[in-house]
Amino acid sequence: MLSDFLKENSSWEEYVNHKFVRMMIDGTLPHENFRYYLIQDAKYVEEMLRALFRASALAPIDKAIKLLSVILTTRDKGLETNNYLYSKLNINQEEIKSAKMNDINYSYTRHLNYWAERSWELFLVAWTPCMWGYYEIGKKVVQSNDDLYKAWASFYSSDDYKRRVDIILENLNSISVDKDLALEIFNRSVKYEIGFWDYALSMK
Amino acid sequence: MLSDFLKENSSWEEYVNHKFVRMMIDGTLPHENFRYYLIQDAKYVEEMLRALFRASALAPIDKAIKLLSVILTTRDKGLETNNYLYSKLNINQEEIKSAKMNDINYSYTRHLNYWAERSWELFLVAWTPCMWGYYEIGKKVVQSNDDLYKAWASFYSSDDYKRRVDIILENLNSISVDKDLALEIFNRSVKYEIGFWDYALSMK
Repeated sequence: MLSDFLKENSSWEEYVNHKFVRMMIDGTLPHENFRYYLIQDAKYVEEMLRALFRASALAPIDKAIKLLSVILTTRDKGLETNNYLYSKLNINQEEIKSAKMNDINYSYTRHLNYWAERSWELFLVAWTPCMWGYYEIGKKVVQSNDDLYKAWASFYSSDDYKRRVDIILENLNSISVDKDLALEIFNRSVKYEIGFWDYALSMK
Repeated sequence: MLSDFLKENSSWEEYVNHKFVRMMIDGTLPHENFRYYLIQDAKYVEEMLRALFRASALAPIDKAIKLLSVILTTRDKGLETNNYLYSKLNINQEEIKSAKMNDINYSYTRHLNYWAERSWELFLVAWTPCMWGYYEIGKKVVQSNDDLYKAWASFYSSDDYKRRVDIILENLNSISVDKDLALEIFNRSVKYEIGFWDYALSMK
């Protein structure tokens, strides 16, 4: 399957077992870094959805409708979790709005939008590492003894979130693309994800 | 309100009280014409959704998510109605796929996609006549004594469909646009709708 080929030939382990993830699991990650991460993530999600809508206009319409429906109807738990974390960490929408995207976040979201404007198939490839990786990460971090990290991971390890990953992988594995190009795009996203954690550790 | 201004200064009555509509109400419309219309409409909806997704990428993200969620979660009754009508009239997906868009349908959907690529606000303006007009038409046609037309109208006069119209008008009335340009775009859509009925009568 395409998904397995891409994962196995990318820097996947470096992404899902990143120091940031390990520190969430063992509870040693300072909340300050997590707070920085959450704000960058909120800005990421907005641009990621924009790219998804754009790419959907290029997709076979039935596939686009199904996938968008799953993404939009499984948002509630994620929003609830975010609101809980925002209240615990004193984050409000104004702060998210006024925060600047860091360099890796900016580059990553340009990359997603670039492919979204060109190809539904290649957007799927670029988008998969984010959605799929967070499920794997959520499954690990949900065992953290830090309540905030546990709460964060409860969404990404949930059945609702799994429905997202399942339909994305189903779509990814139904397309035909040039494997080399797909791997390049997939691995760029994986490397952006690694950079996303790096930046959240250094708070650059 | 912008919506009232646009409706009052357009060819609205000619659209919602078109001969095609009156013949659905009094049951004199031949099923052959209705069948022709349904196939063209199926082709229209696909391109209309494509335009909606495209425009959503340009919208304030919260508005786009809300509107898309309403559109996608109120599709079931419409699909059910269509499947009933398709089975009664012996229409299948292959026939829809292989049918050519008539000239007005082609022009109308290019018009929608043109604005969808340029502006969320002007796409809303171009899109509203279709969604809003069908609610008014549905309310009239649901009293038809022809079971097929009654079934068709049962979706467009439903509460689910009204939720769509409400959120579209709410969005439309919250934007600020050049009124003259908005009226031109709105009225072009109204005139395309009139042409859509004309073509369904003449089966050109």
